[in-house]
Formats: sequence, structure tokens, C-alpha cells
Amino acid sequence: MKINHLGIATNGIDEALKFWQGALGLVNVHTETVEDQKVRVAMLPIGDTKIELLEATSEDSPIAKFLEKRGGGIHHIAVEVENIEESLVKLKKEGARLIDEKPRVGAEGCLIAFVHPSSSNGVLLELIQKQ
Amino acid sequence: MKINHLGIATNGIDEALKFWQGALGLVNVHTETVEDQKVRVAMLPIGDTKIELLEATSEDSPIAKFLEKRGGGIHHIAVEVENIEESLVKLKKEGARLIDEKPRVGAEGCLIAFVHPSSSNGVLLELIQKQ
Repeated sequence: MKINHLGIATNGIDEALKFWQGALGLVNVHTETVEDQKVRVAMLPIGDTKIELLEATSEDSPIAKFLEKRGGGIHHIAVEVENIEESLVKLKKEGARLIDEKPRVGAEGCLIAFVHPSSSNGVLLELIQKQ
Repeated sequence: MKINHLGIATNGIDEALKFWQGALGLVNVHTETVEDQKVRVAMLPIGDTKIELLEATSEDSPIAKFLEKRGGGIHHIAVEVENIEESLVKLKKEGARLIDEKPRVGAEGCLIAFVHPSSSNGVLLELIQKQ
């Protein structure tokens, strides 16, 4: 298991890059728009994981809602697992509340599923299985 | 550069371990109390980084205050840098707001310094230089 990425909600990627890239020294290697999640993302590798800067592309984007409520901060942690089906069965058996009972297809064809923050100390947790 | 750990505020480490260890499958390799920060911590390695579960040991602990305000979630990201003095100079030059202008000694003799969340998209950022 490893952390695939840490999603950080921002009011704008270009402005946020001044800090994470310009001041801290990370490098933005990839920017893309994920239409069905209504976000634009920038990926900055750090160690064996990545910082994912998130920007809303419409007013009803989950990121716009998060920013309105929380002002900013870490939106989610994505954990890479070997077998997402097995992980979901185990989590459910142990009483975790799942947002997705079954994995769905996310960016780059990965299988993904979200665990509800009420089960994970207020942290929105994304499980990812690479294909 | 790499992420040294992700600090997650909890209402109690034992309860939180039921999720992070029991259900998700991480392993708690080290628990300690950090007296001057008024926290008890549990460390669960994941990839080249660690999840740090945090529990307040007194009512005026920063973690107690964070939980009161936010209910839970990720408290801070700790980034390991080669030379913390140089990183702080660079951050300041680029206009970042620093909580610690000079590094101080943290757990295990590391040098640490915090960057104010107002500079880093609402994320409390800890810089760490191993000694």
C-alpha cells in the first residue's frame, strides 16, 4: 500500500503553484481537466507520492462546495491498494461507511472508490487500484 | 524532498486504529507521547511516508482546539527537506508567511519549522530536516 496522491483544494492552480512550485520547489509535471468531476488538477510528485492541486471548473463542483465550507485545505487522501474489491469487503466487514460500495472507473482507467469521512476521522479517503 | 508524515487529528488513537489498522490494514509501529506538544501519536508506515494519528493529552492541546473547530481531519503535512534553513529563506523570499522563522528541535532531534496555512492553501505545513 502507498499514498497515490494528496488532493488539495485551491481557489486557482496558477496562484497555488506560486507556493508549491515557486517557493517550496516541487515541479508540476501534469495538468488536466477531469470533466465529470468538474475539476482541473495539477500533479506535483514528492517522494513516492504526489500533491494534487485541485481547482473547480464550475460552481457546482465538489471542490467549489468544499472551499465554501472549509476555505481550503486537504480535500482527500488517495491510497493505492492491490485489490480494491477485497479492500472494500474488508472495510465493510469492519463497519466502515462506504460512499462507493463498488469500484468505478476514475482517471487514467484506474478503479476507485471513496470511504466516508465519518469512518476515517474526518478524512475523505479514496481507494485506487491501478489497472 | 518527500512527505515524512501526514498528521491526522483523532478523538482517540485506540478507536482510530480500528479503522486505519483493523479495517484498512496499516500497522502501528510506534506510539509515543510528545509532552511539550500535548499529544500522543501513533505512527503507521505507508509507502515511503507515514500516517501519524494524533490524540490530545490535555484540553489546551493544539489537537483539542483543532477538533473543536473542525471536528477532525488532516491536521498537517510534514515535508522532509535537505536543508531547512535554505528552504525557509526561499519561502520567505517568495512571500510565504512562516510560523517559525528559525527552525526548532522537534521529535527525535529533527529540525522543524511550520509554514502558516494562509500561504499554503489552508494546509498547515511542517518542514523537517533529519539530523
